[in-house]
Amino acid sequence: MHIKNQETLKKENQSLVLELILSESPISRAEIAKRTKMSPTSASRIVASLKELGLIREVSLSSDGLGRKALYFIPDEMSVISIGAEITPHDVHIGFVGFKGKLIVKETVKYSDNDPHAMANLLYQTVEDMIHSNGLGNKKIVGMCVGLPGLIEHKVGNVRLSAQFDWHDVPLAKIFSEKFGFGISIDNALKLRAFAEYNLDEELVNKNMAMIGFGTGVGSALVFDGEIYRGENNFSGEIGHSIVDPYGIACTCGNIGCLQTYISERFLLDEASKCSDITTMDELVEAYLGEEKWAVNILNKAITYAAITINNVICVNNPNAVVLSGKFIVNYSVIREKIIAKYQELLWSPIENTFDLKVTRLGSEGTILGAALSVQRYFVKNLDV
Amino acid sequence: MHIKNQETLKKENQSLVLELILSESPISRAEIAKRTKMSPTSASRIVASLKELGLIREVSLSSDGLGRKALYFIPDEMSVISIGAEITPHDVHIGFVGFKGKLIVKETVKYSDNDPHAMANLLYQTVEDMIHSNGLGNKKIVGMCVGLPGLIEHKVGNVRLSAQFDWHDVPLAKIFSEKFGFGISIDNALKLRAFAEYNLDEELVNKNMAMIGFGTGVGSALVFDGEIYRGENNFSGEIGHSIVDPYGIACTCGNIGCLQTYISERFLLDEASKCSDITTMDELVEAYLGEEKWAVNILNKAITYAAITINNVICVNNPNAVVLSGKFIVNYSVIREKIIAKYQELLWSPIENTFDLKVTRLGSEGTILGAALSVQRYFVKNLDV
Repeated sequence: MHIKNQETLKKENQSLVLELILSESPISRAEIAKRTKMSPTSASRIVASLKELGLIREVSLSSDGLGRKALYFIPDEMSVISIGAEITPHDVHIGFVGFKGKLIVKETVKYSDNDPHAMANLLYQTVEDMIHSNGLGNKKIVGMCVGLPGLIEHKVGNVRLSAQFDWHDVPLAKIFSEKFGFGISIDNALKLRAFAEYNLDEELVNKNMAMIGFGTGVGSALVFDGEIYRGENNFSGEIGHSIVDPYGIACTCGNIGCLQTYISERFLLDEASKCSDITTMDELVEAYLGEEKWAVNILNKAITYAAITINNVICVNNPNAVVLSGKFIVNYSVIREKIIAKYQELLWSPIENTFDLKVTRLGSEGTILGAALSVQRYFVKNLDV
Repeated sequence: MHIKNQETLKKENQSLVLELILSESPISRAEIAKRTKMSPTSASRIVASLKELGLIREVSLSSDGLGRKALYFIPDEMSVISIGAEITPHDVHIGFVGFKGKLIVKETVKYSDNDPHAMANLLYQTVEDMIHSNGLGNKKIVGMCVGLPGLIEHKVGNVRLSAQFDWHDVPLAKIFSEKFGFGISIDNALKLRAFAEYNLDEELVNKNMAMIGFGTGVGSALVFDGEIYRGENNFSGEIGHSIVDPYGIACTCGNIGCLQTYISERFLLDEASKCSDITTMDELVEAYLGEEKWAVNILNKAITYAAITINNVICVNNPNAVVLSGKFIVNYSVIREKIIAKYQELLWSPIENTFDLKVTRLGSEGTILGAALSVQRYFVKNLDV
């Protein structure tokens, strides 16, 4: 509990103006003053300092139908660059992202050794190569964030558990930061993806959004009032380990009947292996389309539980926008359509018209964009002009 | 997005000082200045105006072991009184609550007609009677809030759905306000109960808390960063209608296998009626304790699903405190202990040490206390000294 003094106020106002330009550009000086309820003098002063720092630019645009021009402000997209990365079970994805979320360049590198130090070296080398081969050496790179699945204590940079990599209490941010020589943050991949979707899809502006990911696991993430909902330890959204049937299938966590045992890739392939020698989701979906009985049974059950997941996330969180994502949704349109049809059948009626349902627009780049944007947001919030 | 000006700042600082006195009293002027990072002059000025309004009092307390006295500030408990009410299926509960949450007087009245206008009359008459018979006529009563189960759009005062009363889109706040002649707010009963628990249990200070209610329905409520989590329409926490078994028991909502069909009173009694002529939970629990097979089977299943509910709420929300409440928990200690034992068995291991589990301390007064406190909080936040 702090009383706000003049200095805090000044910084907050500077961040606010930059945020406004980021979200509303092109925007005029008069509009900035109006929207922020600031005097024209104060608005001019702050805008001038942001310009001097090279964070924003002035553009001359037609302000009416008569060809008269007026000055507007826009962020300088190349003035602030951040790096977003995502670690998935066999690949590392790295992207350099400009101010406002434009992906400048992206690389994917395969790895075989998931030792965190080896991964730090790989990340470092790739980032260095990308800076040099893309001529980004003279740019202001404000930081880097790495997303991965699991229980990620983002404040302290610790991986409490990431089942996909068999990591338990790995101080990953520290290991990466030591290699890079500057602070690197880590976060849960689905939370970052949700954050990117919220910030880059104009239809989601001011929405309270839930993202559901159906992929190697099942998870949910919320962006409410523009902020990622994290829970106490950043462990929220672990809906994959909510139990739906205490007499169901054993889960890798040691429990019985976790929701993910009905939906996620690994379990579907385990079930399929009892009836067939297929080893991939592509083959499973192909068998489903070919109406092979075992595939139809396995996937119909998965579709029902995915639909249940959508209902349950809405009942618990009451978002007004729901975004479906993950391999199961993005790669297989037939499955996606069936999930959407089924959830409409199962949805609790009183909440029918309380939200819009959408499919992710960001595809495989969601997490790296969200990671990079989270770094930029920190930069803007802590701006000290 | 508003730039803060001096006036907003002044009001915020006044509210902050009063909040500090409410949460930390007795507190000295020096401590107020220190905690708020305010100058002693500003602190004195604000404290003086709060005193003048009669909201706080000065007390002289020993400040060391030597018997020396110093001045401290405490809220004047009788300076701000608010009214909290709860509508349950057969009763209306009304309480007058002093500043800081002390229940001054409480009444329960039975009703038979659940027409909202009839209920407004009953509420009005009871409140009037309570004011007169308790000599509260000359007190500053700052407002009233009414809690009830269901989907309550608290911002507009509309009951979207309250299944217990068969109310659909009833503008309840307006109906009550017209009778009383001043604004009355309405809210979801479990959210208010959680708010009271958070504010009145010192062990919950600064906790991120989930409350789970097992009673006529099953619901959850969150208080995060001191605020009730509401979702978009105040409909969050409807975990009772999350589906756990698409091939389970029909729910009153028209779906199959909603979580509440395994736990809540009505469904347990429905199941019991197939094997016995009992009609109350007391009788069901008695039969369970008498080891009657049907009762043991029904309640063991309910205990398992209650335990699952606890796991699921924690997986999704990641609170660091969980408070169990509701008739099932409060009235039947044997059932409560079995639920707690079972959830320990079922809990997802990685989140084992991330929270404390507690049982509600407020009993049947939780909702009226929360309702009254929510009114006081609004008063303090919007203080205009």
